[in-house]
Amino acid sequence: MSKLRLKISMSLDGFVAGPDQSVSNPLGIGGERLHEWVVPLAAWRSMHGLEGGEVNESAKVVEESQANIGATVMGRNMFGGHPGPWDAKKPWTGWWGADPPFHHPVFVLTHHARPPLELEGGNSFTFVTEGIQTALELARHAAGEKDVSLAGGAKAAQQYLSAGLVDEMEINLVPTLLGSGERLLEGLGDDLHGLELVRTVATPRVTHLKYARRGKASSDKL
Amino acid sequence: MSKLRLKISMSLDGFVAGPDQSVSNPLGIGGERLHEWVVPLAAWRSMHGLEGGEVNESAKVVEESQANIGATVMGRNMFGGHPGPWDAKKPWTGWWGADPPFHHPVFVLTHHARPPLELEGGNSFTFVTEGIQTALELARHAAGEKDVSLAGGAKAAQQYLSAGLVDEMEINLVPTLLGSGERLLEGLGDDLHGLELVRTVATPRVTHLKYARRGKASSDKL
Repeated sequence: MSKLRLKISMSLDGFVAGPDQSVSNPLGIGGERLHEWVVPLAAWRSMHGLEGGEVNESAKVVEESQANIGATVMGRNMFGGHPGPWDAKKPWTGWWGADPPFHHPVFVLTHHARPPLELEGGNSFTFVTEGIQTALELARHAAGEKDVSLAGGAKAAQQYLSAGLVDEMEINLVPTLLGSGERLLEGLGDDLHGLELVRTVATPRVTHLKYARRGKASSDKL
Repeated sequence: MSKLRLKISMSLDGFVAGPDQSVSNPLGIGGERLHEWVVPLAAWRSMHGLEGGEVNESAKVVEESQANIGATVMGRNMFGGHPGPWDAKKPWTGWWGADPPFHHPVFVLTHHARPPLELEGGNSFTFVTEGIQTALELARHAAGEKDVSLAGGAKAAQQYLSAGLVDEMEINLVPTLLGSGERLLEGLGDDLHGLELVRTVATPRVTHLKYARRGKASSDKL
């Protein structure tokens, strides 16, 4: 069965978003510092239609995280817009403009039903109100032989981690403090559901910590 | 001037001690998992008067952290015993028995005055009620040309980090969750006071993240 793979950037003090997230500041105060390591990379630039960029150890990790993904699951907060029911007159279509960088089906966890959204470049957004299990089943079906990416945010990731449904977790640990905001590893107790550290890639700007169940990740080397 | 060097083991979710710390369980529930990586090492065993043990990448980090240390500062909670005034009839003498592993002067932050304690092997404990600055000055004086180790616990580390007095910070990041307990990086806001990630040593059991001010740590390589 295809794997559910979480990738997320986290500060040294455990935050995956800064405080005071809003439509105008989706990452919260200081949150952009979590992504400074990825923006210069060729792998990130090409995903956003830009040329050039750096090729380094982090780039290989990003390329690996993008490879073999057939569908994405994300939380409502990551898809964005004001909380609560969708604005029927001016429906929010995500942060990414007319041609988002996914190019495959995306399933958005929400409490508020809404028809699917089709954008350019093979990007479709399906809004799932039946919970994380249903969203994962739909995403796995859409992904076929490929894996499913769990894109965040914190609350969606926590729900899948709590349920033991995450097969791989790549934490990009950024050597900075945010001080407050949303923590990734909260409300999970002390249970990683068998996820073990299977690979570390160290760079000055970020430490990539890959967790997996060893039996399912025999190709990984430490 | 001699450096103040913090070394501490932290879980992936940011805890340096588990919940429900007590005299019978000083590391809190699950807290011993933070130290499983260090106990098999020859460097740790020799520090505790034991022979044999492993020599690996972590051992080099431990040896480095023990080298050139002339004095230690620690919080009352790390020295241990029941909180509040000292028991004059049966004074607490620390967790470490008659011959603690420091072999140099130790300065304990406390709100409760107490005469110095002399144990075997060059171990002396001085109880400082005048705050972190005074404790650091006393420790620096005692250390002479050598550095001062900041041994923890969380609250003592936070006070020195908040004041910008920590020159080096080695976080031994353990790939496990504790779920609750005492966090290291709390109440510091988003300010590392110039500490930057200068070296990462990756092993399957622990990731050693060394932070320093670059100008003061030019011999470190990434």
